[in-house]
Amino acid sequence: MTRDPGRRGRERRSSGGIKQLPWRTYRNPYRPVEVLNEEQLEKIHQASLRILEEIGMEFLDAEALSILKRAGAEVKPGDNRARLDRGLVMESVAKTPAEVTLHARNPERSLTFGGNHVNFGSVASAPNVNDLERGRRPGMFSDYCELLKLVQTFNIVQFISGYPVEPADLPPATRHLDAHYAAITLTDKVWHPYSLGKQRISDAIEMICIARNVDKAGLARTPSLFSIVNSNSPLRLDGPMLQGLMEMSRHSQPVVLTPFTLSGAMAPASIAGALAQQNAEALAGIAFIQMVAPGCPAMYGGFTSNVDMKSGAPAFGTPEYVRAAMAGGQLARRYNFPYRSSNACAANAVDAQAAYESEMSIWGAVMGGVNMMLHGAGWMEGGLVASFEKLVLDVEMLQMMGEFLQPIEVNDDTLALSAIAEVGPGGHFFGAAHTLERYETAFYAPMLSDWRNFETWRLAGALDASQRATAIWKQALAEFQPPPLDPAIDEALRDFVERRKREGGAIAA
Amino acid sequence: MTRDPGRRGRERRSSGGIKQLPWRTYRNPYRPVEVLNEEQLEKIHQASLRILEEIGMEFLDAEALSILKRAGAEVKPGDNRARLDRGLVMESVAKTPAEVTLHARNPERSLTFGGNHVNFGSVASAPNVNDLERGRRPGMFSDYCELLKLVQTFNIVQFISGYPVEPADLPPATRHLDAHYAAITLTDKVWHPYSLGKQRISDAIEMICIARNVDKAGLARTPSLFSIVNSNSPLRLDGPMLQGLMEMSRHSQPVVLTPFTLSGAMAPASIAGALAQQNAEALAGIAFIQMVAPGCPAMYGGFTSNVDMKSGAPAFGTPEYVRAAMAGGQLARRYNFPYRSSNACAANAVDAQAAYESEMSIWGAVMGGVNMMLHGAGWMEGGLVASFEKLVLDVEMLQMMGEFLQPIEVNDDTLALSAIAEVGPGGHFFGAAHTLERYETAFYAPMLSDWRNFETWRLAGALDASQRATAIWKQALAEFQPPPLDPAIDEALRDFVERRKREGGAIAA
Repeated sequence: MTRDPGRRGRERRSSGGIKQLPWRTYRNPYRPVEVLNEEQLEKIHQASLRILEEIGMEFLDAEALSILKRAGAEVKPGDNRARLDRGLVMESVAKTPAEVTLHARNPERSLTFGGNHVNFGSVASAPNVNDLERGRRPGMFSDYCELLKLVQTFNIVQFISGYPVEPADLPPATRHLDAHYAAITLTDKVWHPYSLGKQRISDAIEMICIARNVDKAGLARTPSLFSIVNSNSPLRLDGPMLQGLMEMSRHSQPVVLTPFTLSGAMAPASIAGALAQQNAEALAGIAFIQMVAPGCPAMYGGFTSNVDMKSGAPAFGTPEYVRAAMAGGQLARRYNFPYRSSNACAANAVDAQAAYESEMSIWGAVMGGVNMMLHGAGWMEGGLVASFEKLVLDVEMLQMMGEFLQPIEVNDDTLALSAIAEVGPGGHFFGAAHTLERYETAFYAPMLSDWRNFETWRLAGALDASQRATAIWKQALAEFQPPPLDPAIDEALRDFVERRKREGGAIAA
Repeated sequence: MTRDPGRRGRERRSSGGIKQLPWRTYRNPYRPVEVLNEEQLEKIHQASLRILEEIGMEFLDAEALSILKRAGAEVKPGDNRARLDRGLVMESVAKTPAEVTLHARNPERSLTFGGNHVNFGSVASAPNVNDLERGRRPGMFSDYCELLKLVQTFNIVQFISGYPVEPADLPPATRHLDAHYAAITLTDKVWHPYSLGKQRISDAIEMICIARNVDKAGLARTPSLFSIVNSNSPLRLDGPMLQGLMEMSRHSQPVVLTPFTLSGAMAPASIAGALAQQNAEALAGIAFIQMVAPGCPAMYGGFTSNVDMKSGAPAFGTPEYVRAAMAGGQLARRYNFPYRSSNACAANAVDAQAAYESEMSIWGAVMGGVNMMLHGAGWMEGGLVASFEKLVLDVEMLQMMGEFLQPIEVNDDTLALSAIAEVGPGGHFFGAAHTLERYETAFYAPMLSDWRNFETWRLAGALDASQRATAIWKQALAEFQPPPLDPAIDEALRDFVERRKREGGAIAA
């Protein structure tokens, strides 16, 4: 089940019943949409530099502040705030590599971020799960594992964005050990440890070294892990995040600096202002990474959206969100950073709203030049729920986007002049040789869409897309087989987890 | 209710309860996505010219064939097929104006097609209607009128693409008279008569002249009507369509030449081949329009999609569809034609599939450089149904796209540096003066989306987007007031309809 079923165009999996695209990696051959002109882009850039010079950013960690001060930032005694002049910022961020490849334990699942590479990830960090059979409930480790199995099953979900759901039944101090072990053994894809203090990152690094059978120098040369660091907008990075960030950076593992700039709440109620603040926070964080570990890979995350001004409720996939996602890509490319965006939605049900908000987010990301699409599959309710049906829906939408990214082939064979001549005016192409040759592979074959006519669909039970998605995730779980893992590596991982549990886990966090 | 509630940014309607964007016209400020490179575009262009030279196109009308022959096409005696050499094609199509403005009876509702203008239209030509209260059923004149009322209510639906549903209870020979009278009196927007023989077009022209109080010379100078002409792909234009086309062209009213090139059925099972055939058919039709009436406005329609190769069922909003929509825009721009695309989907329910297929179509159209989006609101089941709930869903999706097309404002006020300084690290913007000033107008306010948290939503009945849409169309119908019309014009229209009914209507068709 985890073997690559073939690299040719549209070959389907031979084992298992779920029809899907084969594993492959994606590039965006099209020019990103530019929602800002050059002058506007420059104004936002300049505004963000002024924010860092004049207002500054809080770093709630003594070590971080001393590193900043040593690098040339202005840090007043007894103050958490660092002011960074534009020369220091630009000189620091310029050390960031334009691309980074993350090495999965299965080398076929490695992914490159930067340039025109596009990678789609799972839902992450939801406190709750939902599905049509069992209802909405707080996430448990069993849900966590089921979601990982779905992530492993669906080829278009290329990496794990974080814990798909928080396994609340596991003790906080050792939760990461079980969670990482499950990520390594139930999947063979790139995964994410949380920057919640130094210890959790340090344990993750030990575990990926065991899983890949490399030492730390080897891991530094061939990074495997990434970690999202959200600034506590406005203009603050907290201690645990900074400690995780430093540990990641000292091992050359990329951090994705993603300001949580909800316009109207944690950022100004204007897109330009929210973008200026997003950019200031991201630049400050990435500059800091380069002060910790010059040349360390890092990524620029855009997450600017808006709140409903009447209620304060966060909204996603809105017109403001889409333009901010595209503008975020322009900003990231201005500095040659790999760019992270998301497939976000605020819907409470896996209905038309979930689909249109997600499509808006997906188009904003992809045509914004995204390299890392976080929360690609399964994210709902503004991140409060990981939904099994939404995951299936997202897989279909991402597969369609993946196919959209395949350039049209134009050659004598595809132009088909002889078929057009053979069929002639008023004929049809069903029986033409040109059609029969392409019978299996001509077009994208959907997983979730139902194209039968109304009467046939009605007689078959009139299931809507959400109900059909239930059958698909249930089938995927029923058919799941874990990817192969060397038993010696498995044993070493178990030994590590046991030892660290005996030691108490992340007791210092 | 039909008065323009104001042209400023996001002002809402003051009367009536439905919150929506004000009437306005749209331009696409962004560069279209180019899915074909220059060389590929040229290859498709050349292939389409070869099709017209070597294979030719059937014109099932004696008058049309004689016009073609006179213009220099090769027409063999006793044959319906015309072969057009590339010089004749290119010289003819070059006479087409790059832009055309269609004048509604209410001048505020006039629309320009071409350049970067984007206009959104209603569903058209469905045989059935569906809504959650009354179920799926063949369309009647009462449904037709209700759908027109919704089209009139929602500002984002800027024109009527055709009969929203076929009013099957009206006699075919006089149906167009009642249908046009309803379009003129229940709405004040641009509308569409069918090219089904000369008489129906001729009656429509008389009626719009009465409605606008212009004579035919005035109408020719300020066109009002457009008509879709679908080729009977492959490579055939039928008699009634051609007769309608000639009547439209002789009155300088634009025809939208839209080949019905379903890849794998009426066109080759390869996108490039389907596009070459689409382009050949559109070029032939537009060249013919210019032979009938040199300089007549015309538009290029793209409708290429694919069938499910297993069942032959048509599919819409697929990855193939999206790329074809964008390539169609590139082809239209190559010849400076205004470009028509669609909001198409194959779903049977107003569910996530309906939304994601429609979003794919909408993005393909808009980022393909569409000028006229046909079937923008209410089209389902591949055109077999006009859905009341889908119409509301589409209004929300089109409004979001309309807002996406508004450029980000970047200036000192929107960059909000003083608000960011005032709030400072770790604060929040809810109470900032900058936020309070923007409380009402900062962000797009949705009509259908529900952003409440799960518990509030659940306690309020857990209605999904489709169920919420029912309440909105019912409210719109309950609140409907017809747009003002001079009673003398109304009387003249009624007299015309009565007289033409006495004469038997379109008896010659």
